[in-house]
Amino acid sequence: MAQDPLVIFTPSGKRGRVPAGTRVLDAARQLGVDLDSVCGGRGICSKCQVAPSFGAFSKHGVTARPEALSEWNEVEARYERVRGLKQGRRLGCQAQVLGDMVIDVPPESQVHRQVVRKDAAVRAITMDPATRLHYVEVAEPDMHEPSGDFERLARALQDQWGIAAVTAAPSLMAKLQPVLRKGGWKVTVAVFADHHDGPAQILEIWPGLHEGGLFGLAVDLGSTTIAAHLCDLDTGEVKASAGIMNPQIRFGEDLMSRVSYSMMNPGGDKEMTRAVREALDRLAREIAAEAAVDPALIVETVVVCNPVMHHLLLGFDPVELGQAPFALVTSSAMTLGAADLGLTALNPRARTYVLPCIAGHVGADAAAVALSEEPGQSEDLVLVVDVGTNAELLLGDRTRVLACSSPTGPAFEGAQISSGQRAAPGAIEKLRIDPVTKEPCFRVIGCDLWSDDPGFAAATAQSGITGICGSGILEAVAEMRMAGLLDASGLIGSAEQTGTERCQPDGRTHAYLIHDATEDGGARITVTQGDIRAIQLAKSALYAGARLLMDERGVDHVDRVTLAGAFGAHISPLHAMVLGMIPDVALDRVTSAGNAAGTGARIALCNRAARARIESEVRRITKVETAIAPRFQEHFVAANAIPHASDPFPNLRAGTDLPEVSFNTGGDGDRANRRRRRRA
Amino acid sequence: MAQDPLVIFTPSGKRGRVPAGTRVLDAARQLGVDLDSVCGGRGICSKCQVAPSFGAFSKHGVTARPEALSEWNEVEARYERVRGLKQGRRLGCQAQVLGDMVIDVPPESQVHRQVVRKDAAVRAITMDPATRLHYVEVAEPDMHEPSGDFERLARALQDQWGIAAVTAAPSLMAKLQPVLRKGGWKVTVAVFADHHDGPAQILEIWPGLHEGGLFGLAVDLGSTTIAAHLCDLDTGEVKASAGIMNPQIRFGEDLMSRVSYSMMNPGGDKEMTRAVREALDRLAREIAAEAAVDPALIVETVVVCNPVMHHLLLGFDPVELGQAPFALVTSSAMTLGAADLGLTALNPRARTYVLPCIAGHVGADAAAVALSEEPGQSEDLVLVVDVGTNAELLLGDRTRVLACSSPTGPAFEGAQISSGQRAAPGAIEKLRIDPVTKEPCFRVIGCDLWSDDPGFAAATAQSGITGICGSGILEAVAEMRMAGLLDASGLIGSAEQTGTERCQPDGRTHAYLIHDATEDGGARITVTQGDIRAIQLAKSALYAGARLLMDERGVDHVDRVTLAGAFGAHISPLHAMVLGMIPDVALDRVTSAGNAAGTGARIALCNRAARARIESEVRRITKVETAIAPRFQEHFVAANAIPHASDPFPNLRAGTDLPEVSFNTGGDGDRANRRRRRRA
Repeated sequence: MAQDPLVIFTPSGKRGRVPAGTRVLDAARQLGVDLDSVCGGRGICSKCQVAPSFGAFSKHGVTARPEALSEWNEVEARYERVRGLKQGRRLGCQAQVLGDMVIDVPPESQVHRQVVRKDAAVRAITMDPATRLHYVEVAEPDMHEPSGDFERLARALQDQWGIAAVTAAPSLMAKLQPVLRKGGWKVTVAVFADHHDGPAQILEIWPGLHEGGLFGLAVDLGSTTIAAHLCDLDTGEVKASAGIMNPQIRFGEDLMSRVSYSMMNPGGDKEMTRAVREALDRLAREIAAEAAVDPALIVETVVVCNPVMHHLLLGFDPVELGQAPFALVTSSAMTLGAADLGLTALNPRARTYVLPCIAGHVGADAAAVALSEEPGQSEDLVLVVDVGTNAELLLGDRTRVLACSSPTGPAFEGAQISSGQRAAPGAIEKLRIDPVTKEPCFRVIGCDLWSDDPGFAAATAQSGITGICGSGILEAVAEMRMAGLLDASGLIGSAEQTGTERCQPDGRTHAYLIHDATEDGGARITVTQGDIRAIQLAKSALYAGARLLMDERGVDHVDRVTLAGAFGAHISPLHAMVLGMIPDVALDRVTSAGNAAGTGARIALCNRAARARIESEVRRITKVETAIAPRFQEHFVAANAIPHASDPFPNLRAGTDLPEVSFNTGGDGDRANRRRRRRA
Repeated sequence: MAQDPLVIFTPSGKRGRVPAGTRVLDAARQLGVDLDSVCGGRGICSKCQVAPSFGAFSKHGVTARPEALSEWNEVEARYERVRGLKQGRRLGCQAQVLGDMVIDVPPESQVHRQVVRKDAAVRAITMDPATRLHYVEVAEPDMHEPSGDFERLARALQDQWGIAAVTAAPSLMAKLQPVLRKGGWKVTVAVFADHHDGPAQILEIWPGLHEGGLFGLAVDLGSTTIAAHLCDLDTGEVKASAGIMNPQIRFGEDLMSRVSYSMMNPGGDKEMTRAVREALDRLAREIAAEAAVDPALIVETVVVCNPVMHHLLLGFDPVELGQAPFALVTSSAMTLGAADLGLTALNPRARTYVLPCIAGHVGADAAAVALSEEPGQSEDLVLVVDVGTNAELLLGDRTRVLACSSPTGPAFEGAQISSGQRAAPGAIEKLRIDPVTKEPCFRVIGCDLWSDDPGFAAATAQSGITGICGSGILEAVAEMRMAGLLDASGLIGSAEQTGTERCQPDGRTHAYLIHDATEDGGARITVTQGDIRAIQLAKSALYAGARLLMDERGVDHVDRVTLAGAFGAHISPLHAMVLGMIPDVALDRVTSAGNAAGTGARIALCNRAARARIESEVRRITKVETAIAPRFQEHFVAANAIPHASDPFPNLRAGTDLPEVSFNTGGDGDRANRRRRRRA
């Protein structure tokens, strides 16, 4: 008796024998191959497209002949005629296996396809969203066997998709009857089934096969800015990204001033809640418009944020977060209706997932960083620093992860700096000081040229040179130290001491002049002694937080450092190390994770198992409270000095040709290196 | 070695030995005795009060000595001083068992106490509401072990009450922190855990011990009236009852005209939905005010209604219910937020349970009747008839239950009757015709006197005699038949044929004059030939429905008949049988169940297991669709005649002294019997 045909699926390599005549889709299911289908094998959704290969495959020990696959049938022919199929593609639900075969499942036909993360190419997101589309054929009503339309739809989902139990909101049920009849009892439903037990939920229904896709919004709700990515829940593709200022800024620049606002003003928390919800709703509307996506197709949102924003978004008074013992209302992840948060722009039944908080000072944003950077999966000991208005720190490896938050204050973001400003066009973001001439050279946001490049003046004429942003002030302080304009205690020298007239008296101390356009009605930008002190306080807090975690872990060094956060993406590791912001580690062991919190939100949006993973990971993380640790103060005081560049790295000389890691700055690293070489 | 003390609890008779020093509450729990506690044994809620008995109990074989129970301790003494304890009562959580004991658990200390149903004393409702109060002591926050207040509350519920998993809406979480702190980390929570799996829900929280109770609303949402009972969820006591007209009447008197309104007017269903929700909300507010109950303490509602009202309440267009195959949006029971139905009067997190529908014409009201009357538990074959604008019929016993709906139309409610009116003061509700003189004698709603009683005119001067309501017209037609004014086909005889001038020409037919006050500006009340036809149609439909179920069941008689519905409560079984409304059965086998649908709603409100029971029972009921059964038409036509009283019951003579069953009419049955005797 002849053996059944052997089918080998690539790239999985899964193989097995199936009876001749088996449809490729059925063969894939029997062999556990990841092959998608929305229409359930009816030849209309084309999600199960496969690419058969023919010839001799010595690797697989099989020869695939063209006749091993059935001829095109009518369904495929009609699909090709109406929609078109890529060259060499077949519909897996139509083509039948007749002989030994090698069949490739292209990435877009895999249910759990991988999405490459632009910001960290080493890891991909596996698509497994909580909400999926299912096409079903529903039994028509029968007077002799009375049952509700919903019950027959639920039965169809069970029979055709194995979905055991579903529920639906009354608003969805209200649509059921007209849509079922319009679709001739064939409909597509969006079914939400997350990582929790319990019935799935039908979020939306369309007549016939819905081909408009499903979308989700990953939101990084920061104290200063709200950023969102609109993602295709099928492909994982980011369709649009947008950010707006957090309107709560008018109630207080930093988190503690917003907590104070709530304490001082009855109902103040409700004002702030309303403001942030309205902003989020507006952002959702704008981003959908930008991507030309019907907002009703946005069925999920994931939100990451710090604890104060978490409380204000959810409608909780954050007052307890302003005082010891910093008790959260809830630290658990939450799944709720987007409508419950006043998000009217989305599908009315859209779901919102808010990541868990780690502690009263270490929020869902830190959890999202943990989800993105996975310190708990690291073989070596990694310190992850998310630098923002507050810095969140995670230290760990496979054995244990510790977390804390450090009150760095807003200096790293350019606030409370004499010439400081937010990162916006016209702000100095990079700065070098010639160790010999002590002359500064800088770049501003919105212009690729350095200040001593020809054409710089013309290129910045529109924005002007308006101030210095977070990364700029950091580099300025580090460069001043390397150029000998600062001593180890952080004191700016006089013109006499430093040999440059740019060190000018400023009250009883001195200030370093970077730029002066007052004659032309422009800005005068200096680094004052107060600015140095503000940066020293901020970096000491950050460093002390890291040291506290290292003490708890019982180590005096880390193997690598990851800088996360929008600001972290722009910090030069060299300058961070010169300043003593982060523990000593080889420069090539310092990497940027970009907006890791935002990436964590995207992961949780695209993969429901990631939600379970981070919820369990957060329970495993040891929280360290900086506010009550005596050693934090000790480390903080000890970290106040600015180590000379040559102290930790004897071969490090200001202005010499050093390796510099590039941080998402549009190839700027290379350019800066060239510049250094040129100047050296 | 001495044996452990023997403890015997009454009335359960549960007994067992416990170590000396065991608290009575703990002994009860160990022995599975139903002893309540809200505070968890802290001596503050007094729910665990018990009554120890002393002396020799030969029945139990034990002698209980006073020293078998510990002396009053400080907690009991304080409770007695501050609150007072009934004579002979002890706090079960304080008193310790020291010797052999007989301990009575009074009804109010039982968790699953029985509530006597006024309307059907044979059955009681066992209290087991979905929402219960739990007093907990919550751990204070600790910076070293950061966790949210909610997580610590959840832990306390698990540790102190064995509630494994709880959730809470954001609006509840927003109250958590101030209430926990106000209560000094001691709070009472209302926890909703119904018959479904899945986490329990915290609906409300109070500082300290909440002693204000919890309440629920059982709603019977009819086409014409909306009735509600406000029940204490602890005792089951009905605190207040109220009813209002269904404001949807302005869109159509009967259900089908409302379905038509929706068909003819785009958005008409939404208008009707808004109207009924607003009415229900107003009713809830009024009933809470009447009972002086804080509406925020109403945490549950249960709604029963026919399929059209079901759809309109839930916001579903009822259009499909107006045409074959009469498909429901959903037939399943629903549990949703009361706020989702626009009920703002209640606790904002109150839950609403809507009973399942049986079929497109047999709704949640019929399910509620089944829950109340339990035909599926009956040893003999019972026909349950719920008479309203539509009649719902259930026929069954332990082996099988069948259900159908019969389109009786509104004649039974006094609509489409020439002198008809709703049951309201001034309406004739009872009527007798002297078989000799053919003179009528009647009673009107709002007055206990008969029209030939002295003082009747004065007593009815205010209301007047305005018309004839449903039960009145039924009695009038039956009495006319019995007095020989009608022939078997339903034709009214002339004055000559009948021997009374009250049979007056009325167009080409005759009408019987009951009352004429036109000279005083009052009403002229007659029964016309058209009225007789309307009643014939309605009663034929009802009878045909019953016969159809009997055919399906393969029987030609039933063992008993239960008349349910507000109207059913006023129908005289004698007259119903004379008319041929219901199948022949001995008069003493016809009982009234009162408002059985409303009782079913109360049962589902007070006992969560009843929800599971009716959901499973409904799946077991065989639905019979009258609209497509050819035999329904046959039965309908055959039932048109009005059998002479003497036909089915040879000993039945109009006006003779017959037994009459009393139907919740304030002892009226006796009075009517006296009257018959007087007149006979």
